[in-house]
Amino acid sequence: MYSCYEYIEIYFIIQPYHYQYVLFYEKLNYSFYKFKILISSIEKIVDSEINTMVSDLKTLIKIPSVSAKGQNLVECAEAVFALMNRVGIKSEIIYLNPKDKNISDSSLPPPIVYGEIKSQKNPNGKTILFYNHYDVQPEDPLDQWDVPPFSGEVVENSIYGRGSSDDKGELITRIKAVEYFLRETGDVPCNIKFIVEGEEEIGSIHIEKYLTKYKEKFACDGIIWEFGYINEKNIPIISLGMKGLLYVELIAYGPNKDTHSSLAVLVENPAWNLIKLLNSMRDENGRILISDWYNDIRNFNQEEEKILNLELFEANEFKKEYGISRFLGDISGIDVKKALCGSPTCNISGFVSGYIEQGAKTIIPSFAKVKLDFRLVPDMDPQKQFAKLQQHIKDLGFKNININFIHGESAARTSPNDPFVKIITESAKRVFGDVILNVSSAGTGPMHSFQKILKAPSVSIGSTYVYSRIHSPNEFARIDLLINITKCIGEIIENYN
Amino acid sequence: MYSCYEYIEIYFIIQPYHYQYVLFYEKLNYSFYKFKILISSIEKIVDSEINTMVSDLKTLIKIPSVSAKGQNLVECAEAVFALMNRVGIKSEIIYLNPKDKNISDSSLPPPIVYGEIKSQKNPNGKTILFYNHYDVQPEDPLDQWDVPPFSGEVVENSIYGRGSSDDKGELITRIKAVEYFLRETGDVPCNIKFIVEGEEEIGSIHIEKYLTKYKEKFACDGIIWEFGYINEKNIPIISLGMKGLLYVELIAYGPNKDTHSSLAVLVENPAWNLIKLLNSMRDENGRILISDWYNDIRNFNQEEEKILNLELFEANEFKKEYGISRFLGDISGIDVKKALCGSPTCNISGFVSGYIEQGAKTIIPSFAKVKLDFRLVPDMDPQKQFAKLQQHIKDLGFKNININFIHGESAARTSPNDPFVKIITESAKRVFGDVILNVSSAGTGPMHSFQKILKAPSVSIGSTYVYSRIHSPNEFARIDLLINITKCIGEIIENYN
Repeated sequence: MYSCYEYIEIYFIIQPYHYQYVLFYEKLNYSFYKFKILISSIEKIVDSEINTMVSDLKTLIKIPSVSAKGQNLVECAEAVFALMNRVGIKSEIIYLNPKDKNISDSSLPPPIVYGEIKSQKNPNGKTILFYNHYDVQPEDPLDQWDVPPFSGEVVENSIYGRGSSDDKGELITRIKAVEYFLRETGDVPCNIKFIVEGEEEIGSIHIEKYLTKYKEKFACDGIIWEFGYINEKNIPIISLGMKGLLYVELIAYGPNKDTHSSLAVLVENPAWNLIKLLNSMRDENGRILISDWYNDIRNFNQEEEKILNLELFEANEFKKEYGISRFLGDISGIDVKKALCGSPTCNISGFVSGYIEQGAKTIIPSFAKVKLDFRLVPDMDPQKQFAKLQQHIKDLGFKNININFIHGESAARTSPNDPFVKIITESAKRVFGDVILNVSSAGTGPMHSFQKILKAPSVSIGSTYVYSRIHSPNEFARIDLLINITKCIGEIIENYN
Repeated sequence: MYSCYEYIEIYFIIQPYHYQYVLFYEKLNYSFYKFKILISSIEKIVDSEINTMVSDLKTLIKIPSVSAKGQNLVECAEAVFALMNRVGIKSEIIYLNPKDKNISDSSLPPPIVYGEIKSQKNPNGKTILFYNHYDVQPEDPLDQWDVPPFSGEVVENSIYGRGSSDDKGELITRIKAVEYFLRETGDVPCNIKFIVEGEEEIGSIHIEKYLTKYKEKFACDGIIWEFGYINEKNIPIISLGMKGLLYVELIAYGPNKDTHSSLAVLVENPAWNLIKLLNSMRDENGRILISDWYNDIRNFNQEEEKILNLELFEANEFKKEYGISRFLGDISGIDVKKALCGSPTCNISGFVSGYIEQGAKTIIPSFAKVKLDFRLVPDMDPQKQFAKLQQHIKDLGFKNININFIHGESAARTSPNDPFVKIITESAKRVFGDVILNVSSAGTGPMHSFQKILKAPSVSIGSTYVYSRIHSPNEFARIDLLINITKCIGEIIENYN
């Protein structure tokens, strides 16, 4: 249909300097052809449509769809729906309960945007499912942003804003790849489905229910996961798994109101109690001290060990990026990679008690609250781990502490030997020259639910530069990577069948 | 000059029902005299001027003079100055550096209001100094207030608002007592001075400098401290001392930005470090574990032990008020009183790290901050104790933790045998029927600086109901107690000489 590899060797020679060319050809009004580089017709469209891609992404970034606050979710779903339909992906907005559609209540499950295109030439062939999300993390701390967090401001090769990488940028690459196939050929090489949900950043609370309810509709043969990292050497990290998560809030209660701290000789301070409890839960190297916490962990198999050994990880670059001088527990080498792929964590995402503003105030706070996220690995079950946490708190005799389960997800992994993995790695190699295979991302997503219900392998590949500050102030997406991943997605769907 | 004790016995018989009468006579348009109760002429004015007293207090409450935020301090000083001058107390606003007067900069030391009246009939007699403050604690948490915190709303016998008790209510009782003497007799029975400062709630940072600079101007023979408690049985607690304070902020630093918590396998979380440090500083019974912390403590002497034994403390009432079921360390009896008067504390007034809003966010915070207040007792020195804290942190090897000294004050006590104590206890007994002597308040104030520089005894007596929620939401002052303490201050100045 199109011969995208004709001049691929020449292309790879210039690829590391690609971005300079992008800038250059923008300046020269699409005069890239002066370099006599012929790449595939799809790739040509990708390159010529950069401005539209950036503009469509900006439209999405400008909607502050913060799921933690139930904010602008339907609005963002509608924008995604409109964009997908505009480019020719037949889409619909699906509610878990159809009657929720006309109710404006941010406590209801947000809708998912579902899109589908049947391949005309190959309607009985394989089906690829793109899983993405339109919700984003909260934007705080606001004062640490250099640009307004929902501006989508473009500075040279970067588009800034909450969601620019995670996950609106990734979503755009999938939509654009399909759009350009449709535009160039009037068809798609395989059947394509999209699921774009609105609760990924708060643990995909309802995705399992959606998957169960629409199991037939969503049926597929392989899933392209919502994100993928690209390292500092422009090599995509193709990840085959996700960690699980247990998110809890512990609230310790003290006196019935904030109380003058002169009474601290008599009145227990809930912050001290919470600190004592937390201190009992984890040692200074990050090891979790809750009884039986590690019982259900499945060890890496031989194939996974092999991948771990091959994986590249630039420790110094990483430390520089985050301004740290050492790794937790002073680990190094293979242990770092093993930790990222396979170690559980107990992390404090937030802690608040008493007076936190400017200056001095002398009170015993009436409560202290901590938000904890535990990353889980195969085969830990969030509910079982939560029960262990409850037991730990009970065993130590802590009173006046509420333990709230916020959400849980199990970890999941796809076998490196799955043929779907090979299609993706080979497609990515053609665009990027090299790939890094990764047993599991350190992050979390509802991969376990997808694998369990749709029974399909899932692989992460995407445009997220490893240091693009997702979940942090000044999140950005690199435009050159958005371009290359759009091309790579094109390769993947061309090669799927 | 006036005979205030003529019908004192009758007055004491009706005193417990005083407030009902106040309401009744308000309704009957000052028809209180129908009851044929004759009390002193000053006391008559106090009773007949309740509305003016409440109104003047309300004027002060409405100025949100929060010293922690450097907010509305000069404005409040000017209101106090205007009020004192209006009632005949010759006043001035004094700046530490006179050139600060015309500079609007909230980081400069706020002024003090100084007032003075010489007794015409007794100009070479003794001088009493009223020490008060016009600043207040921050009003947060706002959502726990039933009325706007700076409204001064009156509900039955209570006037609500930040500062209504601490310390604007107390200040009003002193000013009013002097005002009524001047009105009734054109004179005051002893020399009177007022110091009203604006930094008490943030540790009276500059009061020692003011005292040193204006030592001669402020010279006095006895100091009435800024507050005093009245217990649930309407008995004033006359307190002879104050604890000291060391206020510090510890800030633990982690990655250079809030970071995706999937990286918690590698990146140290500053909240965990701070929790580990805090946990090393104090045991579950409140005992401070920092080396040599208790070295400089002076034991109670025989006289103090005697007072402690006599002091009443309603443990159950206290527990009910604060909604607690036990005291820290399960202490009881005399130990509770000893703790309030003489035990140091290490209290968490505030702790913040990471995401503290609604919902789930998964980050490693870039910092964690705690506000700690240590109450000190004689003869602990704040600077020495701070050095012990620094050494503790150093010894444990904690890095990336900033230790900020916010302020320090030493504890102070006046001898129970001082003749000034006797004048106050006897005056208070005449108005309230009984008094409770107390070795030291559990709270803190710059009493040590006053005693050191002015070499005068200082005694706390005031109108603050023990459960009036000072420093807490819904702080209030009881109008009946404001009335009675105004009368009591009248008694004290009449008896001083």
